[in-house]
Amino acid sequence: MNKQDIKIGVIGLGYVGLPVLSLFSQKYDCWGIDNDVLRVEALKSGTDTRKCQSNEELSQALRLSYITSDWSDLGQCNVYIIAVPTPVDKENLPDITHLEEVCKAVGNILSRNNIVIFESTVYPGTTDEICIPILEKTSGLVVNKDFSVAYSPERINVGDKIHQLDNVPKIVSASNQQALELVADLYGSVINAEVVRASNIKVAEAAKMYENVQRDVLIALANQYSDYCREEGIDIQEVTDCAATKWNFSNVRPGLVGGHCIGVDAYYLLKRSTQKKVDLPLVITARSINENKALQVSNRITAYAQSIRIDTKKIKILILGFSYKANTPDIRNTMIATIVKSLYGTFEIVDCFDPLVDNYEVELRYGIHMLNPDQLQLDKYDIIVKAVNHDVFDNFIGALPIMVDLNVFL
Amino acid sequence: MNKQDIKIGVIGLGYVGLPVLSLFSQKYDCWGIDNDVLRVEALKSGTDTRKCQSNEELSQALRLSYITSDWSDLGQCNVYIIAVPTPVDKENLPDITHLEEVCKAVGNILSRNNIVIFESTVYPGTTDEICIPILEKTSGLVVNKDFSVAYSPERINVGDKIHQLDNVPKIVSASNQQALELVADLYGSVINAEVVRASNIKVAEAAKMYENVQRDVLIALANQYSDYCREEGIDIQEVTDCAATKWNFSNVRPGLVGGHCIGVDAYYLLKRSTQKKVDLPLVITARSINENKALQVSNRITAYAQSIRIDTKKIKILILGFSYKANTPDIRNTMIATIVKSLYGTFEIVDCFDPLVDNYEVELRYGIHMLNPDQLQLDKYDIIVKAVNHDVFDNFIGALPIMVDLNVFL
Repeated sequence: MNKQDIKIGVIGLGYVGLPVLSLFSQKYDCWGIDNDVLRVEALKSGTDTRKCQSNEELSQALRLSYITSDWSDLGQCNVYIIAVPTPVDKENLPDITHLEEVCKAVGNILSRNNIVIFESTVYPGTTDEICIPILEKTSGLVVNKDFSVAYSPERINVGDKIHQLDNVPKIVSASNQQALELVADLYGSVINAEVVRASNIKVAEAAKMYENVQRDVLIALANQYSDYCREEGIDIQEVTDCAATKWNFSNVRPGLVGGHCIGVDAYYLLKRSTQKKVDLPLVITARSINENKALQVSNRITAYAQSIRIDTKKIKILILGFSYKANTPDIRNTMIATIVKSLYGTFEIVDCFDPLVDNYEVELRYGIHMLNPDQLQLDKYDIIVKAVNHDVFDNFIGALPIMVDLNVFL
Repeated sequence: MNKQDIKIGVIGLGYVGLPVLSLFSQKYDCWGIDNDVLRVEALKSGTDTRKCQSNEELSQALRLSYITSDWSDLGQCNVYIIAVPTPVDKENLPDITHLEEVCKAVGNILSRNNIVIFESTVYPGTTDEICIPILEKTSGLVVNKDFSVAYSPERINVGDKIHQLDNVPKIVSASNQQALELVADLYGSVINAEVVRASNIKVAEAAKMYENVQRDVLIALANQYSDYCREEGIDIQEVTDCAATKWNFSNVRPGLVGGHCIGVDAYYLLKRSTQKKVDLPLVITARSINENKALQVSNRITAYAQSIRIDTKKIKILILGFSYKANTPDIRNTMIATIVKSLYGTFEIVDCFDPLVDNYEVELRYGIHMLNPDQLQLDKYDIIVKAVNHDVFDNFIGALPIMVDLNVFL
């Protein structure tokens, strides 16, 4: 496949797919598709409610590529990059239905010599054992004979302005050597960082799992050590600052683990490791610590409130920030939802405000009513908890005497 | 205390104390003391069986300082730096008797305006609750009125030629602000890295604990993930190489956790956290995984041997390397002892050879008979396991077809 012949279809235009489309469209003919018709219409009009990238990047991507929700528009593509969500269900079991559906849709339009690249995070074996069979069955083609498959795990860090798609090393793996070289060259042509070739797809899948599971374990340890430091009467932040001056200490802070990655991927791994009959008690324990952190925080908020006024039923509290981390509107698996819900009933008023999130989406997904900017009356509260450290709060609200940083409850 | 008046007594001349003495003796009048008379005599004659530093550094330290095992020689000192071992006993409970004894001995010679600096790793609270009361009781002096106490955790990494005492940031803490500044200046005058001031002694103690416990947890996770990768038929080393290209991944490999630090400190923390009624299940689980690793490795060696010859009773095996890690003669808590002992009886011959360790000490401590160099006949074995990656093995033995790296069993 010659470089000038490459026509890329990016499937899924969310936190991963949109930056991918934006980057590749600078050098290649690109199509972007998302099944969410409303999102596609919004993107086309230049509005990205998820703020996956800057307005300039979005308008550039719109100028250089074709965005659609109609699969028949992708007929010319010969390279597909799949970046659909791989969440967990209510029982914390992997839900790969998006991935399976997209494999069917791509299989339907797949032609000879095409390459299908997966970027979604999955447990090792998913690409070989689930995705490839669906592609083969739907297309009637045979992998490595008629088409190739690659896996290149996304490392998008939502809200991170330093580590971007184009400056972070990219792991690539493929079903055959020729495809590996092609995919490595493809990514190498748009990113300014190392392209790391894994010897097979499972290695690349396992590397991504390891990255996120290690982080989950490190945050869980920080959360536990924070509990310990609290009993010693010392500050976990200062202790961590000191320890972080050692060359091999991982500078991880206590925190709420939400979002689409760290808190989710461990469940993917655990499903697979259970099938493989390998016990991973550290991973299970870490999950349980991080899952329980939100309730621990809300108990500490209540205790703090009681130290101000015994009868918490007369206390009005405002939670500032709702997304799962700073400077993103992403509300997937946000632990603030758990905190807010568990505070209902304890206080006279529990309000929540986040100028970045889509209030309607919060209501729909969590049943939590968010304040609109015109409803915000900061002077009516007894306690304001700054739960998420959005930059906008600095200008919008500033420092208030009754404001407490959520960090003190971690 | 003026700089020219400072006279330093370094107590404990092992892996930590000897480099400390060596460094400070370049700028200050120094005395070094160790209760082990034989070790002191050997050091005086220029022999350091523990190879804590280069011969040049040792001879320089000998030229510039006075080494003794007689406490009355330390009468002129006004700064004491305590670097004695803090091991665990057979039940994995902290054994701080060395520390307590040294506190008594220092208390006996302590004078007004002296400073006592602890470098030994201890659980938070040890300095305030155990060391200071002993110093006060034995000396009849009062802390912060008559004398001061400081804590600066050692970060010596045995066998590491890059991270040395003088180029790694040093945490300092003290019982009062004046002592903190003096101790910070003192370390700052001999090291070429940041001096990090902790706001109190407990913070510095807790930082050191956190460093080593985090590492124990990370290695335990690597050990578990290695088990998982084995079931997937992929190589944990390659998976880790890939993951390590992410900016915040901690590049930790599976391994045996032995020695005086990582494997021990968690037990110090656990004793204290239990007293404080804080559960640390991640730390407990990590310890148990790493403690069990040696037996897992020996089972895998046996399985490997059976793949060569079903009747392992006819197999002769050599274990190369015995110390707890590469390029050190340090045999404290080496997991190789567990592996060797568990292989006895399974094979016709289980031999062990390590040119760096003191064979007599191994016999005494572990009841394991080590080969002398003149007894080594490499061609008589069916399997040679390179258990420790000493540089000397490269020249001495080289690569042999029957040699297997221990890594493949991790």
